[in-house]
Amino acid sequence: MGAADNTDSGLIFAADLGGTHLRAATVDSKGQIDSRFKQNTPQGRDAIVDAIVAAVQDFQKQASISAVSLSVPGTVKVEDGAVVKAPNLPCLDGFRLAAALSSRLDVPAVLENDANAAAVGEMWQGAAVGCKTIICLTLGTGVGGGIILDGKLWRGVDGAAAEIGHMCVDPFGGVACPCGSRGCLEVFASATAIVRMTREASPRYPESILQGREDLTAAMIFEAGKQGDELALEIFRRMGVYLGIGLANLINILNPEMIVIGGGVVNGWDLFAKHMHQQVEERAFPLLAARVKIVRAKCGDDAGLLGAARLATR
Amino acid sequence: MGAADNTDSGLIFAADLGGTHLRAATVDSKGQIDSRFKQNTPQGRDAIVDAIVAAVQDFQKQASISAVSLSVPGTVKVEDGAVVKAPNLPCLDGFRLAAALSSRLDVPAVLENDANAAAVGEMWQGAAVGCKTIICLTLGTGVGGGIILDGKLWRGVDGAAAEIGHMCVDPFGGVACPCGSRGCLEVFASATAIVRMTREASPRYPESILQGREDLTAAMIFEAGKQGDELALEIFRRMGVYLGIGLANLINILNPEMIVIGGGVVNGWDLFAKHMHQQVEERAFPLLAARVKIVRAKCGDDAGLLGAARLATR
Repeated sequence: MGAADNTDSGLIFAADLGGTHLRAATVDSKGQIDSRFKQNTPQGRDAIVDAIVAAVQDFQKQASISAVSLSVPGTVKVEDGAVVKAPNLPCLDGFRLAAALSSRLDVPAVLENDANAAAVGEMWQGAAVGCKTIICLTLGTGVGGGIILDGKLWRGVDGAAAEIGHMCVDPFGGVACPCGSRGCLEVFASATAIVRMTREASPRYPESILQGREDLTAAMIFEAGKQGDELALEIFRRMGVYLGIGLANLINILNPEMIVIGGGVVNGWDLFAKHMHQQVEERAFPLLAARVKIVRAKCGDDAGLLGAARLATR
Repeated sequence: MGAADNTDSGLIFAADLGGTHLRAATVDSKGQIDSRFKQNTPQGRDAIVDAIVAAVQDFQKQASISAVSLSVPGTVKVEDGAVVKAPNLPCLDGFRLAAALSSRLDVPAVLENDANAAAVGEMWQGAAVGCKTIICLTLGTGVGGGIILDGKLWRGVDGAAAEIGHMCVDPFGGVACPCGSRGCLEVFASATAIVRMTREASPRYPESILQGREDLTAAMIFEAGKQGDELALEIFRRMGVYLGIGLANLINILNPEMIVIGGGVVNGWDLFAKHMHQQVEERAFPLLAARVKIVRAKCGDDAGLLGAARLATR
């Protein structure tokens, strides 16, 4: 395919490169997903590049691909197309992944941090359509954040802003975070935290249906909560309180239009939302709390893909 | 004075309207302060307008004034030149102060929140010259904040962002804040907080030279600390810890180049800075903590005046 084919009419090859899976799709300029692709994330940087190149070339047999855009689980230097640090894919640390792809594919390639890409995806095709200033939280294995101010991603001076999961919401509570601090939002509002808090609290709830389960997951705890299990309800109450404290801080600092919450843990919304809202009401300035809408994400697992696609079309 | 005189060569009349004093100065386009003016803040909105008009007309006898710019202690709607809410000057709530001034003076008038103006002043003439992305904290009776991202004040969707004093740094510590929340940075890092914490802790320090002082001020406590008073040292240690927790949050969320700390309490820098830095080191991401410079403000009481002047020249 020659450079003359790289027109706006082509599709974007957008990929969500995770620690476990490499998911990709072709996306048109209106956000429609055309074809999809998924495999386990290959080991090592060469294997990752090979897999993406092969997938793009495969799509190119059917359609014109105008750009490649990747959502990456770590800090990226967008202007260099380089991964700075990816804790779950350390083979990519310091790697100019965009250049490696574009030199083999003869199309432009760009990178973005996954939580940033998800925020862009939600504003383009999801819960925040029509908004300009939003904060997006992704509650998964960890807690990711993306901040869009007046239509533009706020990346910070090193491209590492929006580490919302590492805002401290309980400085002296004693829960250590993998980041080195303690009491971070992530240790109360991630899927990992839901499981840990359930294990910690279980001795106080001998009647819980979660007793004795060694394969606990956040989804399982949510299901128990829906059935009225007191242990599960207490955990989601606690998670909602801490999340609300964190959101109130973000509201007082940034005065956003909307906060979008996504990631697997958001399935527990009906169990934690009341407690979250109560903290926001008690702690954020009334003017700001009345203004901000706090909503569930709508793009699901596609938020990062869609955001990556959007970032390649601008 | 006719409209034809409102040229760039004129001076800005910049005023810092506080709850206690109205301070003003004429400032040229390079940030040089020409003449100064100070009086007690008059009671009532008409009296405030009259006082500013009289001061401007007085200056106009000697120089051409091209614009009037006010730093106001509250939330302002910049595009309307209106005060939304000023807790220490409630007579101004909802008042279009800029229009009231410009209609009487025949020069353009603008308003800005005082902490925002101080941030602009520090970037123009103070500690943050040459920076583009800074956070400015003013530790006075309360704790004010200003956020400048990529050269532009971030005001939020309602003009009420940067309420950094009301970021929660101890959600369950039990200290109520006038804002209605508890554990806000303001209840640990303001001058008011320094005095309150000293009174609370004094029974545990019977040897303190501050014992029995009913006229305690933050300045007095700072002086005691310089002389090695254990009570004063403990209070500034505590204040530094909470301030550091708050700064680490701001660093992880916004990834700024610099944090500038001003206001009267910053005089205690030598007593609190070590504890503040230690928290930042423990809690902020290493990449971001290594990048950010945390410094004392340089403009002193003139930060707001200078920032107001700068905002009128752009």
